Amino acid sequence: MPRFKLTIEFDGTGLVGWQRQDNGPSVQQAIEEACAKFAHQDVRLHTAGRTDSGVHALGMVAHFDMERDISADKVQQAINHHIKPYRISILKAELVDETFHARFECLERSYLYRILCRRARPALDNGRVWWFQRDLDAKAMHIAAQCMIGKHDFSSFRASKCQSNSALRTMDEITVEQIGNEIHIRVRARSFLHHQVRNIVGTLAMVGKGKWTAQDVKDILEATDRRRGGETAPACGLYFVEARY
Amino acid sequence: MPRFKLTIEFDGTGLVGWQRQDNGPSVQQAIEEACAKFAHQDVRLHTAGRTDSGVHALGMVAHFDMERDISADKVQQAINHHIKPYRISILKAELVDETFHARFECLERSYLYRILCRRARPALDNGRVWWFQRDLDAKAMHIAAQCMIGKHDFSSFRASKCQSNSALRTMDEITVEQIGNEIHIRVRARSFLHHQVRNIVGTLAMVGKGKWTAQDVKDILEATDRRRGGETAPACGLYFVEARY
Repeated sequence: MPRFKLTIEFDGTGLVGWQRQDNGPSVQQAIEEACAKFAHQDVRLHTAGRTDSGVHALGMVAHFDMERDISADKVQQAINHHIKPYRISILKAELVDETFHARFECLERSYLYRILCRRARPALDNGRVWWFQRDLDAKAMHIAAQCMIGKHDFSSFRASKCQSNSALRTMDEITVEQIGNEIHIRVRARSFLHHQVRNIVGTLAMVGKGKWTAQDVKDILEATDRRRGGETAPACGLYFVEARY
Repeated sequence: MPRFKLTIEFDGTGLVGWQRQDNGPSVQQAIEEACAKFAHQDVRLHTAGRTDSGVHALGMVAHFDMERDISADKVQQAINHHIKPYRISILKAELVDETFHARFECLERSYLYRILCRRARPALDNGRVWWFQRDLDAKAMHIAAQCMIGKHDFSSFRASKCQSNSALRTMDEITVEQIGNEIHIRVRARSFLHHQVRNIVGTLAMVGKGKWTAQDVKDILEATDRRRGGETAPACGLYFVEARY
């Protein structure tokens, strides 16, 4: 049974997120249905990241098994052909061995969060950025974020419905950069808690506005109490960038 | 009568272009109608560039006159409020004197053209790039383009329905650059002929594919014959970037 690794770009607008739901089309369902159409079998997709509704991906990774031999090129072409109604594109399909697992073998995941700091609402990037109507201090945000590097209990940044057994995570990188009138926040870790990135961004935005200090962020992290953290930043600014194996 | 200069961002997808048409909503109509709603008067917009259907703008410029005094801030807010159904955003509104004219006083216009060179169709940038399914040689395109710098008869790159009296134009800049898997073509001139940028891009793409040489492009330019030039590149890759006064 050949196993295929997919690298996927998608626009999360109008999708209910990665996972199958009753209330609308999901990325998983769209790809599984496209696979079923050319493979004439039920296909079960495993992914590196179960993104929320409205979150985008530049390079999401998933894998599935096929019952018959087919080239990776054909897999890519066939899925892209059948998935056309959706804003989902298979950037790459690769034949991998059976030890590969998109979720459990992933060594590092990275995300990008985009904040647009300007008064006028976005015309071209509507639904692609968090539209923040004022300037943010990227430098202060970057400095405040550095206390999160390393292994910590991230309970203060964890959604109440998060299903993980432990809130311990190891943050490898968190970088805040000003690019034109956008703030780009890049994070890297082996894995993340539910809403962790969006809750960190909401907290850093308070620093960017000058309401909270780097010490406040340190105190919030150490409090391990979700009620202390900032708001959950909107899904539409978040991009799953890469999964490393 | 106060005169206002507007700087406008818009997503051209689903719009019939800048100018009012019978067959769908135009940028001009959307902004004029938004103005009429708060100004309670008919407003006539003059623009730096009458873009085609599907062409986008990062910083289009237009002006109009108002019968009553109102602050530039209010003009921006009011148009942005009333224009919400459209992917159009007023980035800036400025009070200018009566000698300002968005079209006739414009010293230089600049455009960006984006080509996405990859096999997989764009999910996030669908309708925002020319999806070219193979690599292009950006360096060869850049070198070939340089023969167009300066004053020339651009008849070989002019739409048959172009209404300009003369095909003479002076090209100030034409730069072709590879950025990741995109080719970015930047052009600057006082003014352009109808479809000039898209016809130049279509011709340079032939060079990028290795079908035509720099000498071929020079010959095409000198032939002053539209039948010699390349195809018209799709509208969706084109962005009006800036108008300088």
